[in-house]
Amino acid sequence: MSDADIFVYTQPRGPPLSGTKVLLNSNYGSPAEYAQAIDELRIAFPAEDVSTDPVVLDVHGQLAGYSNSFPHSVVVVPRSTGDVVRIVNISRKYRVPIVAYGGATSLEGQIYGTDAKGICVDMSAMSKILEIHEADADLVCQPGAKWTDINVMLKEKGIPLFFPLDPGIGASIGGMISTGCSGTNAVRYGTAKGEWFLNATVVLPSGEVIKTRRRSRKCSAGFDTLHLFIGAEGTLGIVTEVTIRLAPLLPTRVAVVQFPSVEHATRASTEALNYGVNLQCIELLDALFMKALNTYNKNGSRTWPEKDSLFIKIQGATPVFIEESARILRAVAEKHGGTNFEFAATDAQAEELWLARKNALHAGFVMFPGAKAIGTDICVPVSRLPDLVAASKKDFDAAGLPVPIIGHVGDGLSLPTFRKQAAPTDFCTGNLHAIIYHYNDEEEKIAQGLVAKLVKHALDLDGTCTGEHGVGLGKKKYLVEELGESTVELMKYIKQCIDPLNLFNPGKVRRYDKTPFE
Amino acid sequence: MSDADIFVYTQPRGPPLSGTKVLLNSNYGSPAEYAQAIDELRIAFPAEDVSTDPVVLDVHGQLAGYSNSFPHSVVVVPRSTGDVVRIVNISRKYRVPIVAYGGATSLEGQIYGTDAKGICVDMSAMSKILEIHEADADLVCQPGAKWTDINVMLKEKGIPLFFPLDPGIGASIGGMISTGCSGTNAVRYGTAKGEWFLNATVVLPSGEVIKTRRRSRKCSAGFDTLHLFIGAEGTLGIVTEVTIRLAPLLPTRVAVVQFPSVEHATRASTEALNYGVNLQCIELLDALFMKALNTYNKNGSRTWPEKDSLFIKIQGATPVFIEESARILRAVAEKHGGTNFEFAATDAQAEELWLARKNALHAGFVMFPGAKAIGTDICVPVSRLPDLVAASKKDFDAAGLPVPIIGHVGDGLSLPTFRKQAAPTDFCTGNLHAIIYHYNDEEEKIAQGLVAKLVKHALDLDGTCTGEHGVGLGKKKYLVEELGESTVELMKYIKQCIDPLNLFNPGKVRRYDKTPFE
Repeated sequence: MSDADIFVYTQPRGPPLSGTKVLLNSNYGSPAEYAQAIDELRIAFPAEDVSTDPVVLDVHGQLAGYSNSFPHSVVVVPRSTGDVVRIVNISRKYRVPIVAYGGATSLEGQIYGTDAKGICVDMSAMSKILEIHEADADLVCQPGAKWTDINVMLKEKGIPLFFPLDPGIGASIGGMISTGCSGTNAVRYGTAKGEWFLNATVVLPSGEVIKTRRRSRKCSAGFDTLHLFIGAEGTLGIVTEVTIRLAPLLPTRVAVVQFPSVEHATRASTEALNYGVNLQCIELLDALFMKALNTYNKNGSRTWPEKDSLFIKIQGATPVFIEESARILRAVAEKHGGTNFEFAATDAQAEELWLARKNALHAGFVMFPGAKAIGTDICVPVSRLPDLVAASKKDFDAAGLPVPIIGHVGDGLSLPTFRKQAAPTDFCTGNLHAIIYHYNDEEEKIAQGLVAKLVKHALDLDGTCTGEHGVGLGKKKYLVEELGESTVELMKYIKQCIDPLNLFNPGKVRRYDKTPFE
Repeated sequence: MSDADIFVYTQPRGPPLSGTKVLLNSNYGSPAEYAQAIDELRIAFPAEDVSTDPVVLDVHGQLAGYSNSFPHSVVVVPRSTGDVVRIVNISRKYRVPIVAYGGATSLEGQIYGTDAKGICVDMSAMSKILEIHEADADLVCQPGAKWTDINVMLKEKGIPLFFPLDPGIGASIGGMISTGCSGTNAVRYGTAKGEWFLNATVVLPSGEVIKTRRRSRKCSAGFDTLHLFIGAEGTLGIVTEVTIRLAPLLPTRVAVVQFPSVEHATRASTEALNYGVNLQCIELLDALFMKALNTYNKNGSRTWPEKDSLFIKIQGATPVFIEESARILRAVAEKHGGTNFEFAATDAQAEELWLARKNALHAGFVMFPGAKAIGTDICVPVSRLPDLVAASKKDFDAAGLPVPIIGHVGDGLSLPTFRKQAAPTDFCTGNLHAIIYHYNDEEEKIAQGLVAKLVKHALDLDGTCTGEHGVGLGKKKYLVEELGESTVELMKYIKQCIDPLNLFNPGKVRRYDKTPFE
C-alpha cells in the first residue's frame, strides 16, 4: 500500500455540513463593493499574492484531504501583521467577510466559505520562527508555522525542547489556537486551553493590533484576552504572532497491553495516571481495529491478539524513571485483567510497537476498501467512558455499520500528505473518536444518525459534542443543548461587541437564532 | 513568638491604594434608591443575612490581616445561585454597585469598596462541596470553599487527590478564579489560567445564569467563556459553582542547597526543570533572609549558611522516583556552585527543613520589629530574573531600606489566621516578591518609589507588573504601559458589553480613561 493509495482513501467528499448557507447580513457589501475590495487588494499587494483563479479558490475552500470545496471570492497572502491590518481594513471598508486559512486540517469546516463568500487570508507565508529562547523554554513564531516543523527544527538545532500539542499533521499554530486543539500528548501536557500559548498578537475587526500579554510565564494583568481567541475559530480576530511555551524533550518508551474489555482498559488507565506514573500517551485500539491490524499485516511476522488494547508511551529523564514507571504500569494493568504486557526494551522495539498504532488507520481502510468515513469527537468525564462505549456499541450494532474505535495515528511524520482525519481516542481524557465507515448515500444517512446519537449519549453523560475539533459549521446545532441558551447568548454578545459588522468568519461557531443573519 | 505577635505584625494599614476614588457613574442610583435596594434585600433575605452594622461593613471592606477599611453600603450573605440572582436583580433595579467577597486575601484591594459604595456579597455561606468524583479526579463546590479546606477534607476521606493551586491561606475558590491565582506549586502544576477549573456557574450582570462548560476534561465547544472570568476580579460576573480538577497526591521529599548568587540558583533551577526531574516546588530565600532565620532561631540547634538558598520539594510515586530525582538535582546544583546539599532522608527531617522556609516571614518580622511591609509581584521570563534581581538590589541599596527576597510561606496550615501577605518568590516562573520593610511615612514614600522602579525593570525585561496578585486598584496604572492601549480598550469593550451599567466591582482592573467614570 503506497502513500498514493492512502491519499485516495482520504479524499471522500468531506464532513457533511449543512451550515454553509449563511443568511446574508444586509450590511455586507454589494457585488460591486466586493469587486472594489478585490481591486484594492490588488493595489496593496504584489500580483502573486492576490488570486481569484478558480483553482486557487477551490483549493482554499477545501479541507486537506477532502474533495468538497466551499470557495471564497478571493485569496490573499499576507507576509506581516501590517499586511493583515491592510486586508482587515479593506474588508471593513467594503463590508466583505474575511476568513483566516491555516493548515486546513480542521474537521468541522472552520475554513470553508459560506454563501456570503469573501476574502480568504492564507497565512502560509507567515510561518517564520522569529525568536528562540532556550533558557526560558519558549519561542516566538508566526501563525503559519506548523507544530511538526517547529519540533523538527528544534531537534535539528539540538535544542532538547518540544511543543507538546500534537493535533493533525499539517496543523498550524494559528489554527491550533483558533480550534482550541489538543492531541495524543494531552494525557501528560493538557490542551490549547492550558498555558502553552503565552502571548498572541491579534488583529481585531477594528483593524487594531493587540498583544494579549508579555512573555513572562505567569501574568494576572487584567482579563484573559489570550484565551478569548483560543477556540474562537477566527471569528474575533486574526492571530499574527504567537509566543509558545516548550517542554523538555524526554526519552520515551512504548508498552502494549490487552484487556478483556474497554472498561477494564479505562480503569487501568485511570489508576495508572492517578498513581503518578510518568505517562505521555495512552491510546486505545479496540478489538475490531486490532483485527484490522492483523488483516493489514497478514504477511508480517506478528499476529496481535484481537482484544481491546492500550498503546502507551512512558517518559523519563533516565532509565531508572522509565523502568520504575513500567514496573508500576504492568502491575496496575495486570490488576485490571491486562495480559501480554509487552514493554519495548530497545528503541527499535519501541518503534516497531508504535508503528502498529500508526498503521491502524491504514489498516482500517484496507479492511473497508473504498469506504468513506465520518470521525466523531465526543468527550465525557473519564468514569463515564465505559457507559458511553457500551451505549454506542449497541447503536453501532443496530445500525449494521462497522465502527471501530482507534487511537491517534497522529505523529506519522513519515506521511506528510496524510492527515489523521478520522482517528483517535484521547482515552484518558474521555475523548472518543469512533470511525463510522459507509459506502453509499443510504449508509451515510445512517452514519449521520449515529453521530447525532453519539452526541446525545455524550450530553446525557455530562460531556461535550466536541472535545478538540471545535464547532465550525458542523457542531453549531448542538451548542445550545450542551451549554444552555444564556451561555451561547454570551458568546453572541462578545462576538457582536468585538465584530459588530459580523465580518470575521461569519456563520461559524454558533447559531445566531435571534439575529437577522445566521 | 506567639501567633498573636505575628498577627500584630500583619496588621499594617494595608496596601497603599489611591484608586478607591471612583468618579460616580451618573447612572448609579440616588441615596434614596440605595436605601430602597437595602430595604428590598431585607425583604428577600433573612434578617441575619443582611447587615448595615458599621462593624460588619468595616470588616467586609478590609483585607484579611490589614487594618484599613473601605466599606460598602450593605453586606448580604447568599446561600445559593438563586440568592445571588436575586441580589444582582436588586442591584440592577436600583443601579447599586455589587462586589463579591471571598476569602479577602487579595492583595490589590479587589474587594474594597469605592466612593460609589454598594452591595457586598459575602460568599462565606456558599462553601459546600457538592459532589466528589474520585474516578474522574474532579469535584464540584461552591465558591466560598477554601483550597486548604478542600485538601484537608480529601485527606480525611482518604482520597489520594488534591487541588494543587496554593495561593494565600484563606483564599476561596471563587476568589482564586477571579484573581487568576497561582502559588508555590505553579512550578509543577501551572496556574489558575491553566486547566484546573473545568466549569463555572456564573451569574451575569443581566441576572442570567450561565454554565461555561460541562464536566468533561476537554471541550472545544465555542468561545472559552470559562477563562473570561479567570482574573476578571468579579467585574464580569459572580461565580456561584465551580468544578475543579484534582491531581494525584504523591509522596514528597525536601532538599535545601546554598548558592554563591541568585544567578547561580536560577541557572540550577532552570536546568533541573528542563532535565525533567519531578520537582513540585522551588523556593528561594536570599542571603538576607537566611540571616533572619539565624536571628530568629538563635537558640536553636541549627545555624544556616547566610547564602542565597533554594528549598525544593521533590515528588514521586515511589522512593525510586524520589531518589533518582534527588541524585540528578544534586548533580545539577553542584554543577552550578551549589553547596551543602541537604536531602531529608525521613519525613521528620523533611518537616524540619520545610519549617525553616515556613518560618522565613516570621523571622523577617523579628529582624525588623514593628515595621510595615510592602510585597511586590513582578514576573519576567526566567532567563531575565538575574538581571531583574541585580537591577533591583542596586535600587534597594540606594534606597537604604532592607528588602529581602523570600520564598512562599504558603502552606502553613498551622497558622490559620496568618496570611502570606508579603511573601514569596515563584522562582522558576520568574515571579519575584521582594518585601520592602519601612517604619514611617517618609520611608513608605521611598518604598512606593521602589515598587514603581521594580515594575519598570519588569516591563523593560518583557515581564508583567503582576504575576499572580491581580490588578484590583493597585496595578491599574501600569496596565496600558504593559499591554498597550488597544488591549486595555478591548478589556473595556468586553466589560461594557457584559456589564453596560458598570455595576460589577466598578473601578477595579483597568482605568476607564476615556469614559465618564473611572
